[in-house]
Amino acid sequence: MAIVLGPNRYGKAETRVVRVVRDGGTHHIKDINVSSSLSGDMDAVHLTGDNGNILPTDTQKNTAYAFARKYGVEEIEDFALLLARHFVEETKPISHARVEIEEYSWDRIPAGPDAGDRRHSFVRGGTEVRTCVVHYDQDQGATVVSGLKNLVVLNSTASEFHGYIEDEYTTLEPTTDRILATEVTARWRHRAGGSEFGRPHGFGGSYEGARRALLEAFAETYSLSLQQTLYEMGGRVLGTRPEICEVRMAMPNKHHFLVDLERFGMDNNNEVFFAADRPYGLIEGSVLTDDAPDAGFAWN
Amino acid sequence: MAIVLGPNRYGKAETRVVRVVRDGGTHHIKDINVSSSLSGDMDAVHLTGDNGNILPTDTQKNTAYAFARKYGVEEIEDFALLLARHFVEETKPISHARVEIEEYSWDRIPAGPDAGDRRHSFVRGGTEVRTCVVHYDQDQGATVVSGLKNLVVLNSTASEFHGYIEDEYTTLEPTTDRILATEVTARWRHRAGGSEFGRPHGFGGSYEGARRALLEAFAETYSLSLQQTLYEMGGRVLGTRPEICEVRMAMPNKHHFLVDLERFGMDNNNEVFFAADRPYGLIEGSVLTDDAPDAGFAWN
Amino acid sequence: MAIVLGPNRYGKAETRVVRVVRDGGTHHIKDINVSSSLSGDMDAVHLTGDNGNILPTDTQKNTAYAFARKYGVEEIEDFALLLARHFVEETKPISHARVEIEEYSWDRIPAGPDAGDRRHSFVRGGTEVRTCVVHYDQDQGATVVSGLKNLVVLNSTASEFHGYIEDEYTTLEPTTDRILATEVTARWRHRAGGSEFGRPHGFGGSYEGARRALLEAFAETYSLSLQQTLYEMGGRVLGTRPEICEVRMAMPNKHHFLVDLERFGMDNNNEVFFAADRPYGLIEGSVLTDDAPDAGFAWN
Amino acid sequence: MAIVLGPNRYGKAETRVVRVVRDGGTHHIKDINVSSSLSGDMDAVHLTGDNGNILPTDTQKNTAYAFARKYGVEEIEDFALLLARHFVEETKPISHARVEIEEYSWDRIPAGPDAGDRRHSFVRGGTEVRTCVVHYDQDQGATVVSGLKNLVVLNSTASEFHGYIEDEYTTLEPTTDRILATEVTARWRHRAGGSEFGRPHGFGGSYEGARRALLEAFAETYSLSLQQTLYEMGGRVLGTRPEICEVRMAMPNKHHFLVDLERFGMDNNNEVFFAADRPYGLIEGSVLTDDAPDAGFAWN
Repeated sequence: MAIVLGPNRYGKAETRVVRVVRDGGTHHIKDINVSSSLSGDMDAVHLTGDNGNILPTDTQKNTAYAFARKYGVEEIEDFALLLARHFVEETKPISHARVEIEEYSWDRIPAGPDAGDRRHSFVRGGTEVRTCVVHYDQDQGATVVSGLKNLVVLNSTASEFHGYIEDEYTTLEPTTDRILATEVTARWRHRAGGSEFGRPHGFGGSYEGARRALLEAFAETYSLSLQQTLYEMGGRVLGTRPEICEVRMAMPNKHHFLVDLERFGMDNNNEVFFAADRPYGLIEGSVLTDDAPDAGFAWN
Repeated sequence: MAIVLGPNRYGKAETRVVRVVRDGGTHHIKDINVSSSLSGDMDAVHLTGDNGNILPTDTQKNTAYAFARKYGVEEIEDFALLLARHFVEETKPISHARVEIEEYSWDRIPAGPDAGDRRHSFVRGGTEVRTCVVHYDQDQGATVVSGLKNLVVLNSTASEFHGYIEDEYTTLEPTTDRILATEVTARWRHRAGGSEFGRPHGFGGSYEGARRALLEAFAETYSLSLQQTLYEMGGRVLGTRPEICEVRMAMPNKHHFLVDLERFGMDNNNEVFFAADRPYGLIEGSVLTDDAPDAGFAWN
Repeated sequence: MAIVLGPNRYGKAETRVVRVVRDGGTHHIKDINVSSSLSGDMDAVHLTGDNGNILPTDTQKNTAYAFARKYGVEEIEDFALLLARHFVEETKPISHARVEIEEYSWDRIPAGPDAGDRRHSFVRGGTEVRTCVVHYDQDQGATVVSGLKNLVVLNSTASEFHGYIEDEYTTLEPTTDRILATEVTARWRHRAGGSEFGRPHGFGGSYEGARRALLEAFAETYSLSLQQTLYEMGGRVLGTRPEICEVRMAMPNKHHFLVDLERFGMDNNNEVFFAADRPYGLIEGSVLTDDAPDAGFAWN
Repeated sequence: MAIVLGPNRYGKAETRVVRVVRDGGTHHIKDINVSSSLSGDMDAVHLTGDNGNILPTDTQKNTAYAFARKYGVEEIEDFALLLARHFVEETKPISHARVEIEEYSWDRIPAGPDAGDRRHSFVRGGTEVRTCVVHYDQDQGATVVSGLKNLVVLNSTASEFHGYIEDEYTTLEPTTDRILATEVTARWRHRAGGSEFGRPHGFGGSYEGARRALLEAFAETYSLSLQQTLYEMGGRVLGTRPEICEVRMAMPNKHHFLVDLERFGMDNNNEVFFAADRPYGLIEGSVLTDDAPDAGFAWN
């Protein structure tokens, strides 16, 4: 029996880049969190500590900053592709790069009457975070997964749950009217296409469309199970965004339990709920088109 | 030397109440986190474990739920006052109650064309949390402090920092153009006034006005120091909201450091920043009107 | 183009079970966090919301509590196997179960001289968490992965880093003496073996041995790279625990930067460091024996 | 009505200092988190942004690092006193300094047989954090508060709760045997005494003694209420540590609810509990000696 090295990667995680673009008195900001991971011929560094094939994680961080200045940061997928290709093409021992980016949203603070042309004030937007994971492989090219997380949504009705299996440990009562709340993590895979990723609307338009599809499907689905809602949401993305071939979602069921007020001589009338923390249901699933190409390393 | 009991209080923290109001197909939700703390004649429970003067924290939780049904939940300050008065007036050994409430914001998901009159879908709003702390004392009556936290704001210019003391440990370079970013925690004390608290706009209108004053003052202040910005923000609240007599703020300086790109043969041009986590500056201060009544226990 | 359902699972996450065993005046506690995920014939629940094949997540929670009473909780891997088998064998539409358990450690508070035989007082142990992920499939049987997370370790010397690739964005200085600190997440796969898992020492002995191997290898490795340290740690587990065939690790490089004190006319002498938060290096890798059986779904 | 500046302070929060002391092959580490806040004549900086009286927070950070090298870091209270005095005595407009330090514990990883004299490997200790808050005022001298937080303790029996007030919203059942668990935050004030603080055992011995008193009193108290336990714990510190004159504690009641297993035809026998997150009871109280000097600004 011998001991061997298996799959591995290394990189710099959570480089926080904020870029300001000045268009006269009107500023724009981009607030992102970049994590890169490289792989390639890494036997020596593991077996003997020989760093001859290592591009330091500190250099990866520097590259993120330098590229933000050199190329700007528009859509996070494009910036991730730039970085991933750079690491693979410019560093011989590196054959594969994975770049993950999170983007935090900012809204403009409305300018007061005396602001003139000054528009440089911002307030952090919602809890939601836009995400992407890009791979670039020297042999197999690129994959792009876009997504979002921390998107918290709630339907205060139009949700039922009944007809499930009952065994000796089942005590749950069926319901025909409950709150359905979840914190959506969704990621979607773009069809391969080299420089054509995300076209014709670009990754920005694609993201806006996918996000809207998720929200609208959540709102419009009369739900008999959270799985059904998940499937409708993923299906809506696929049905409206032809550039996307697969959607993966994780949706915790953020339970809102009806409080028993009869103990106090009161009815509840579906009005007052206890929002519980743990435990929570957790629904995970993927929806794809039947012509989706093989995912390869896209989800790694 | 004898050992004696000093100030004390006890209660139930973080009771999560979600209330749904149904107006035909249009629903409204209120999502709050209630913490109550009671004090009074508490020697026995500390010295001998005699619970005869204790209203259990479980009962305090139940009361929050029952009151949400019985009285509804409109402005959090009003709900806190209801609860605090109840605990003091209905439970003999309790002479003082403190009720703190946080409120989380939800936005409506726009209804699609097929929604008809159904409007029951929501998405969590910004990171910002509305807060209040209410005290009710059987002898001295009530105090009300409103506020907000987690309000993250950023000016991408119009901030300088120079002219400070330099000692042997000073290495900071002065700057005439920097990013100024902070996460505002602000609390403001309402002038006393029995049932008149918050009038004539009510606590909702008062909150909206104070919040707007904070944001506008942050955006419009050309800042030479974060202290100056804090003072302008607090002063703007006092100047526009006569029902408020004191504002206390804590504002961490969320440092955005200009990245040195000269090492790579590039200029930066005030475009690319590193958003740091720790350490951070922390500015704390209060602003009040010279006729502000004594605060008493309001800030406890 | 048709839309189809891909891989999916659902369950109850983070059921917090605390079990007390009373052996006269001496008590023992077990503090665990159970998450179960079930899969099987789940088309209907996704496509139409038909819950006929669904064992509610609430029932999964109840089962964890009932089994804690019925069977006790000794090693978390054994408890996870019990639960996973139960869900698959007792619920027809469920063909596969994944059960993940975390265990939090408690130490006994030393009894004072007057304690007599009373030993029921505990203090939470270290930050480290013991983990396991068990799969049970009706066709392919069981897999067991054990592990730990939040194990924070630091060598204050015996770590170098140099000889790496330098490109136009490299500014890092090589060093022959640095702090090496990391927060270890390690998971290790047990060789398959039906009821023989973990023998002859049982999962408890196996865990203690693997943990000791990780700590000792970390302490004893003179490190030229964090990858080398990771490989030594994984290799040490494999070399000392024949029941384990693969180790996967994620080790963030918790950077400790030497503070430049020359600006104050002082040397540093490798004494004073700034412990940074973000960004951080992240090293991920696996080490396995060349006769390791196929992992199947073990790592899912 | 005029707007005036109220109490204020500013400083650098959470400077993470790690210091290594090398005693041949045996190393020692000190891992602390320093926050300083200064006050004094601060009208100008608030009213006009004139920084002439401001020692930058960046300089405060630098000073913490320089002092760690210059004076070493033994007990955190002594280091805080050094820093606080320095800021007040060396910077004319600064009349008052508050320095808060947290210390994280590390244990030594046992050296293997081949380690020789090398002892430089550490593993993070428990979740508990040692704390202190020191004030130094140019007119009134120093105050020292020591403490700890995140000390999680549990008694699996010897806790009852009954005899409480019952009103229309009370549903809690009395119990004569429950789990009592809490996460202790305790702070204790040292009697004033200039250079004599903490004598004769020094702050290290004082801390160890106070911590032991808290743990032993928790373990040995047969509890009828968490308030009683809190009082016993604080009283034990005062009774055994004459250098301490006041103890303030916050102790959340981390509820462990007995799971109702009768629904499954099983008894529970006080064995299986659900560890709840929110809401939680929160008990806050202080215990002091009747000859305790006035606290002044010690608790600010």
